Amino acid sequence: MATDKLLFTPGPLTTSATVKAAMLRDAGSRDREFIETVREIRQRLLLIGGAAAPQNGKAYECVLVQGSGTFAIESVISSAISRDGKLLVLVNGAYGRRIVQMAGVHGIETEAMETPENRKISPRAVAERLAASHGITHVAVIHCETTTGIVNPIEEIGEVVERTGAVYIVDAMSSFGAIPVDLAAAHIDFLISSANKCIEGVPGFGFILARRSCLLEAEGRARTLSLDLYAQWAGLEADGQFRFTPPTHALLAFNQALLELEAEGGPAGRLERYSTNHAALMRGMEEMGFEAYLAPEDQSPIITTFRYPENPRFSFAEIYERLSQLGFVIYPGKLTAEPCFRIGTVGRLSPTDIKGLLTAIRRVLEEMGIAPSADVLS
Amino acid sequence: MATDKLLFTPGPLTTSATVKAAMLRDAGSRDREFIETVREIRQRLLLIGGAAAPQNGKAYECVLVQGSGTFAIESVISSAISRDGKLLVLVNGAYGRRIVQMAGVHGIETEAMETPENRKISPRAVAERLAASHGITHVAVIHCETTTGIVNPIEEIGEVVERTGAVYIVDAMSSFGAIPVDLAAAHIDFLISSANKCIEGVPGFGFILARRSCLLEAEGRARTLSLDLYAQWAGLEADGQFRFTPPTHALLAFNQALLELEAEGGPAGRLERYSTNHAALMRGMEEMGFEAYLAPEDQSPIITTFRYPENPRFSFAEIYERLSQLGFVIYPGKLTAEPCFRIGTVGRLSPTDIKGLLTAIRRVLEEMGIAPSADVLS
Repeated sequence: MATDKLLFTPGPLTTSATVKAAMLRDAGSRDREFIETVREIRQRLLLIGGAAAPQNGKAYECVLVQGSGTFAIESVISSAISRDGKLLVLVNGAYGRRIVQMAGVHGIETEAMETPENRKISPRAVAERLAASHGITHVAVIHCETTTGIVNPIEEIGEVVERTGAVYIVDAMSSFGAIPVDLAAAHIDFLISSANKCIEGVPGFGFILARRSCLLEAEGRARTLSLDLYAQWAGLEADGQFRFTPPTHALLAFNQALLELEAEGGPAGRLERYSTNHAALMRGMEEMGFEAYLAPEDQSPIITTFRYPENPRFSFAEIYERLSQLGFVIYPGKLTAEPCFRIGTVGRLSPTDIKGLLTAIRRVLEEMGIAPSADVLS
Repeated sequence: MATDKLLFTPGPLTTSATVKAAMLRDAGSRDREFIETVREIRQRLLLIGGAAAPQNGKAYECVLVQGSGTFAIESVISSAISRDGKLLVLVNGAYGRRIVQMAGVHGIETEAMETPENRKISPRAVAERLAASHGITHVAVIHCETTTGIVNPIEEIGEVVERTGAVYIVDAMSSFGAIPVDLAAAHIDFLISSANKCIEGVPGFGFILARRSCLLEAEGRARTLSLDLYAQWAGLEADGQFRFTPPTHALLAFNQALLELEAEGGPAGRLERYSTNHAALMRGMEEMGFEAYLAPEDQSPIITTFRYPENPRFSFAEIYERLSQLGFVIYPGKLTAEPCFRIGTVGRLSPTDIKGLLTAIRRVLEEMGIAPSADVLS
């Protein structure tokens, strides 16, 4: 691979040069200095969730799990729910469906509450569903559904779930670090995210912020060895080490990424940049005649889904390839209902990068004989 | 962390500057160029196992699995064995015991054949055990048991297993890439290793070289989503992509590491360097009065276990810490029977580095008031 392309994807994403440079070291996974780095990472993650000790009296704990974000989610689903538990998954996209699938593999009794992909999950509908259902012990929801880019109201849903006494699991994969969240205020028991999303690290591990009492209940419930959430936490607590080899370089990069998040003003500061990126993208795309799939009020600044235009000369595969050759990587769609593509506005990207992408899209459309204008495209 | 220490560990280990520099890029995980890199990696791994197509008529396939090596092993154990299967694990160290534990978590009927940690597993004993047992469908063994550094005779055991028709699983975590192996000749059905061992990449994923027919039988047998070996392979085959986010940077580093392995003359060339490292280490340690735990004929050049000397001033914790401050990271012991420590001779280490370590050990012993000589130490 010759040159570095900018990634307009939901992650792995473009990271800073300094985050990558932090990987130019080989740390001993059981060496004291590395252990200290892991400890700091866990503390900083709790801080981002508004749950750093001693403020929260150790109400929350942080667990790091090797693998992709899906591994971290599976560690929660397969460790937190007892044999006689029952899971309700709130689904409005592919990642909600993945949790349903995962629970099925583990033989966990599961219900799915489906909401159309272009609509936020309604806290009121969740309340009604919970009132009508029997024996739901756990409720899972996706914060930002990367399928569309929609943001679900996790705080309001949390209130509803809390009233039923069920355990509340939030997949905050593509939101944590950019969309501020207060674990306790949102009544979250397990929040899951990963290194290579809005914290702008590189892929290699995910993490879980868990209510301590719920984590302790997970002891002995795990259905795997590698993804045993309780054992992973107990290992980290016992001697600061991972039970099994950690991705040392990814952790060094993540530590640097956390410092850079702090320097940017934390999640609020990062959200501001992403929002500016997203506004610039929307303006430019709409000028060219592209139409966003979601209503503006439902849209996150993380990733945006655009409908395929009706112009017969439009070919996503060709636009993707031409943009890639110009150094811009965009993302295919994932909707079940209609053809679309996605553009991420997260990672080490600035409004200048967005402008560069928009110029490239305009050029590519012209090369393909598609005059970029509202009239021609739609 | 201020300076880069040399890692005399079983991995993560010291890698070359060029391997680390390969991570100074952000690849799109679904972009064509990255997909091509993944394809090349899978081909090269098969080649190292003597099983590159078309020579082997696609008898073997390569699957990459996110996470540590243990995750890759669990993907095999939890995917390859059917509900009515029965596993025999040949145990002479902690990693054999871990497979027993893992199989237990998944409710797999399992027998363990125990051999003392300081003895190689005897193919004849395996034959006797298999003759006496009923219904064994799978046999698992560790190639190089990092617990001690011992190398088990996987070829001879393979012959024995093959005669019974059982599926043969070899954990070659800390040997693959340095100790040459021919998958077909050793009758191996599943071989597992990881990125951060003798191929000298960075941690983040493991890999499996699987006999195609056995892999196909694994369809629908998996007990997890993330570690579903068949589904992972089918995903890689379908569009060249990982099902879930891969550790892109670790894969770029690994690709570079494979090129450097080739440049060193493949596993045979690498074994030569490791053997030279090991010989230099043994000479120096014995001169100082240290005693290796294993008999020389059982010892691998990968990692060496040394007994604690009887000198009352000896403290491993102190030696470890002092060496670490001098820039040398060694490794604690893992024997159940007696106190020991370990020194790895793998990774981007040369005989000059070994000499540096020996000088540092001598200096540290002197600082601690232990005159390094056979008389004083033992």
